[in-house]
Amino acid sequence: MSGDTAPGSIHGSWQITAEDVALVARGARVLGSGGGGNLYLGQLLAVNAVRGGRSIAVIPPENLDDDAFVIAVAQIGTTTVFAERLARGGDIDRAFTTMERYAGKRATAVMCYEIGGVNSMLPLVVAAQRGLPVVDADLMGRAFPEFQMTTLDIYGAPSSPIALCDDRGNVTIVAATEDMFWTERLARALTLAMGGLAYVARPVLHAVDIKRMAVSGSYSRAHAIGKALQRASDNGASVEVALIAQGGRTVLRGRIIGIERHVLGQVGRGSVAVQDLTDAVAGPSSIEFQNEYLMVRRDAKTVATTPDALCVIDEETGAVVDIETLHAGLHVVVIAFPADLKLITPAALHIVGPAAFGYDTLFTPHHGLINRRNSLSSQHS
Amino acid sequence: MSGDTAPGSIHGSWQITAEDVALVARGARVLGSGGGGNLYLGQLLAVNAVRGGRSIAVIPPENLDDDAFVIAVAQIGTTTVFAERLARGGDIDRAFTTMERYAGKRATAVMCYEIGGVNSMLPLVVAAQRGLPVVDADLMGRAFPEFQMTTLDIYGAPSSPIALCDDRGNVTIVAATEDMFWTERLARALTLAMGGLAYVARPVLHAVDIKRMAVSGSYSRAHAIGKALQRASDNGASVEVALIAQGGRTVLRGRIIGIERHVLGQVGRGSVAVQDLTDAVAGPSSIEFQNEYLMVRRDAKTVATTPDALCVIDEETGAVVDIETLHAGLHVVVIAFPADLKLITPAALHIVGPAAFGYDTLFTPHHGLINRRNSLSSQHS
Repeated sequence: MSGDTAPGSIHGSWQITAEDVALVARGARVLGSGGGGNLYLGQLLAVNAVRGGRSIAVIPPENLDDDAFVIAVAQIGTTTVFAERLARGGDIDRAFTTMERYAGKRATAVMCYEIGGVNSMLPLVVAAQRGLPVVDADLMGRAFPEFQMTTLDIYGAPSSPIALCDDRGNVTIVAATEDMFWTERLARALTLAMGGLAYVARPVLHAVDIKRMAVSGSYSRAHAIGKALQRASDNGASVEVALIAQGGRTVLRGRIIGIERHVLGQVGRGSVAVQDLTDAVAGPSSIEFQNEYLMVRRDAKTVATTPDALCVIDEETGAVVDIETLHAGLHVVVIAFPADLKLITPAALHIVGPAAFGYDTLFTPHHGLINRRNSLSSQHS
Repeated sequence: MSGDTAPGSIHGSWQITAEDVALVARGARVLGSGGGGNLYLGQLLAVNAVRGGRSIAVIPPENLDDDAFVIAVAQIGTTTVFAERLARGGDIDRAFTTMERYAGKRATAVMCYEIGGVNSMLPLVVAAQRGLPVVDADLMGRAFPEFQMTTLDIYGAPSSPIALCDDRGNVTIVAATEDMFWTERLARALTLAMGGLAYVARPVLHAVDIKRMAVSGSYSRAHAIGKALQRASDNGASVEVALIAQGGRTVLRGRIIGIERHVLGQVGRGSVAVQDLTDAVAGPSSIEFQNEYLMVRRDAKTVATTPDALCVIDEETGAVVDIETLHAGLHVVVIAFPADLKLITPAALHIVGPAAFGYDTLFTPHHGLINRRNSLSSQHS
């Protein structure tokens, strides 16, 4: 990695090389909150895109020109389908090209829709193939299951147009919608009709909206978390301690004693029962999930909720445990990462807070507000 | 009605006035083959569009300039929903406008997707509002339940792009697809997500494709049938005789003794049992339908099939009986109208013949080929 400043600096741009892709992926798995799709396949695509010593410029939102035309890309759909099909960079690029043609202008930068999971990688694929920079920001700060759960939607940017493509050559555009929920509904219907997986491109019509609305520093953050995990791994040090040093906080520790799963539409819902081994009289705690981990309850109290990112670690190996690989008997520790301030305003909690997922609980900022990253600072710049 | 030649003449253009709208609608109900949506509401929209003495120019495909840009419009979805919602001309116009913008040019004429039923009326609404002519042709020659059952698709014109809009302001574009079946699949998914009804606009990219591929003379034909029915009605003459004079042929007569109905997806399928009262020893005959009438069997023999249009007449009142208003006890006569030659080639029968609907029978041209209208004559002009 090289650059005029270290990643994480709010005003610096830096370069992502092949080695950095692996670090970003490692951090994106943590922010993926147990979901976020098949990161491994995305990582292969991104590494392939920067092979031969190429690199991708990462630029902070503040450095975008006012007339910048930025397109955010992502995949939408089920993880399983993505793993079954041979993922190709061309499919995400076709969505990007479709949106450029529809808008009638060339993009000047690529944007990340969702920093948690595979969608951290797809913008890198497009950026590397086109020689465009990627913006150091995203629209979720973690991974979320629904299309409208973005800070752009929360703060009133248009939720359309979007382009959706599949790997057969089918190309569709949701050109205008009544509201963001209709965008999700139509995009979801197209994704299902396309066999469960689509590649999406969404323009950010005004660069100022990225400065005001996006979660800033996402690639820097994922990179820093990935780097910390790598150092812990290299030195045989504690992953938990490394993640706490990155702003995490331990909210649960114990043994998985049961998992309930059920699928509703494209959302895999469920609950993980965790027994605290140091407190035999306490009833089991739980981790609730809907494609991603959303809430932790301990002693009948909510101790962490969405939009904070939640990461489950295998205590023995230090590996991040995704929802797909959960199993009874695992000793786990759950780390919560404080969400960006843009995600915890009343408007944001309406869309991505616990109630938005049907949980009868309030978001409580256990970290307080002081420790939170504040990408709102650039809102009035 | 006025014009340089009478409607029906292959080379003449003519004008549709408010009175002609009613005649076209009357004929379109016959060609609707028992389905084709809520013609009455469409007729109200079309009459409203030509109120105050306005009229719509109907031009034969031969008169189109080579650089004409023509957009075909239709509604897709369930009849019931169309009846429940307040139909507005603005919704079909929005689809039309979306396609003009997507193509980057203004349309020079409006085209009919499906002459049978309500979709005969919607092009008139757009044409009147914009002061554009409507082409004297359509893509089905009757009504069919699926999106790709058109002569454009049969003869290899691109099945995309298409624009789909609903009455909430949602606007989508199916920009490119693997094939016409994928266009149908994606359009159908969007229509369902939109609540069961969408307004569609599809450009015909090359005017020569209309001359070569469309079913010619559709508005003239519907008008002539409507006029014949009106004359019979005014004179107390036989509707059956009037329809035979318009090229129809009686294929079944009897009393409805039972109706089986079941719905699969958006298609209402079923069978009507009809007892021939003049032949007590014969078993019941049947009319098979899937949103539209598709096949008549008598004495275990197929006597008429799609793509010929099939019209059921109430023998007592002379009224056309749609599938929705069928009931046991009715005395009916079934009239078959020979399909255009473009609809009975092997390529066409693959898409709109009995086998395309799952019936294990071959299309047999009972009228012979001589009596059929031949819009292929313009193919090499």
